[in-house]
Amino acid sequence: MLFTSERRLDDGVLEREFTLGAIPGILWTPEAAPEPAPLILVGHPGDLRRMYPRVSARARHAAAAGYAAATLELPGSGDRPRSPSADRARADLRRAITAGEPVDEIVDRLVLPLVEQAVPEWRALLDAVLDVPGIGGPVGYSGGVIAIGVRLAAVEPRVKAALLFAGSYVPRRMFAEARQVTIPLQVLLQWDDEGNDRQLALDLFDAFGSREKTLHANMGGHTGVPAFEADDGNRFFDRHLK
Amino acid sequence: MLFTSERRLDDGVLEREFTLGAIPGILWTPEAAPEPAPLILVGHPGDLRRMYPRVSARARHAAAAGYAAATLELPGSGDRPRSPSADRARADLRRAITAGEPVDEIVDRLVLPLVEQAVPEWRALLDAVLDVPGIGGPVGYSGGVIAIGVRLAAVEPRVKAALLFAGSYVPRRMFAEARQVTIPLQVLLQWDDEGNDRQLALDLFDAFGSREKTLHANMGGHTGVPAFEADDGNRFFDRHLK
Repeated sequence: MLFTSERRLDDGVLEREFTLGAIPGILWTPEAAPEPAPLILVGHPGDLRRMYPRVSARARHAAAAGYAAATLELPGSGDRPRSPSADRARADLRRAITAGEPVDEIVDRLVLPLVEQAVPEWRALLDAVLDVPGIGGPVGYSGGVIAIGVRLAAVEPRVKAALLFAGSYVPRRMFAEARQVTIPLQVLLQWDDEGNDRQLALDLFDAFGSREKTLHANMGGHTGVPAFEADDGNRFFDRHLK
Repeated sequence: MLFTSERRLDDGVLEREFTLGAIPGILWTPEAAPEPAPLILVGHPGDLRRMYPRVSARARHAAAAGYAAATLELPGSGDRPRSPSADRARADLRRAITAGEPVDEIVDRLVLPLVEQAVPEWRALLDAVLDVPGIGGPVGYSGGVIAIGVRLAAVEPRVKAALLFAGSYVPRRMFAEARQVTIPLQVLLQWDDEGNDRQLALDLFDAFGSREKTLHANMGGHTGVPAFEADDGNRFFDRHLK
């Protein structure tokens, strides 16, 4: 993990860009935090430069509550090499949704390789960030791609709680993994998300094996999550990571 | 409205029992409140004496955040005259649920007359409580019977926000009223509530006309609402009544 830039933001948060091997990422650490600080992995749909305003706002909201926050570019996105098959699947998915056609096979093609490649990278991110002085865990995962969150929650024992954003499709064959998840979950669902299927999201929520899981469904489309959910998210992590 | 008893609880809340005509009720007012205090109507399934521990805990939690809180015995419950037809319908409903038989006709028989009788009583409660010095509204409704909350939210303009507990059946013919509701809503759903139908609750949430509505679904049965939802409820009312 190689820090490539560092700046102090006006809320006192230290924002450091880094590369992990060839993968760019960002680490935010609060001015004042418990020692060692718990860590939140900030998920996103890919292309950190485009997503920066929303991702950094979420990270800084977490930092204001005493969390370190880290994110990593996704395979095939931003400055990383494109994946022609993923680009094709993404276009096919858009077309199928518009046409009201079945999407299961396309979702498998799009999401399964992404999860296969991204999850080991995020676990390597954990190894690296938990070695940074002052950051010690426990760890929470927050956001999308939800399938990445599901896999991480199922296989990575350092992730102790997850706030999952049901804003993208999860392959049906990953429901078996969802049943293996036992950590506390909060699942955010936008009721009319144009990028996801409501019934699929409800079925996934039902499938999770966790004894403590809460669904927060709000009105509106993919980008319409109400501002108060950011506070609710911090309180969820406070209950489980502090 | 005739106060019949008064005591100061150890958290400083003043608890007054009263009768409204022949109907018993309870009013809780915080030691320190904004002037005039906003009011929360605390709904319940009937039989205030039996429900007292849970109802008063919810009222005192609201009072701790600066709300006055009031409740009223339901028709046919507690010390009020029984309704033989409601008792019959309640027994029929239990039987039908156990046998996995359709319940729509029974729900109509049980809930519609209850709503018809209770809602004017709760509106009279509003008239009376808003005349008590120091209490001025705005007003929120909190809890079940959810069908009573739906009707109140649809017809009573003084109710500005409702935290509805989806823990009992709503007659399908009341969905048209749900579509008329426009106030902010938070709907609590217990995922495996033995006294309600999950799909009916999701359909009802979908039907509400409110632009701001949030569903909080949690694991477990009817009485298993997690303690943190009480804080979430206060924050919901804080956003809309303060």
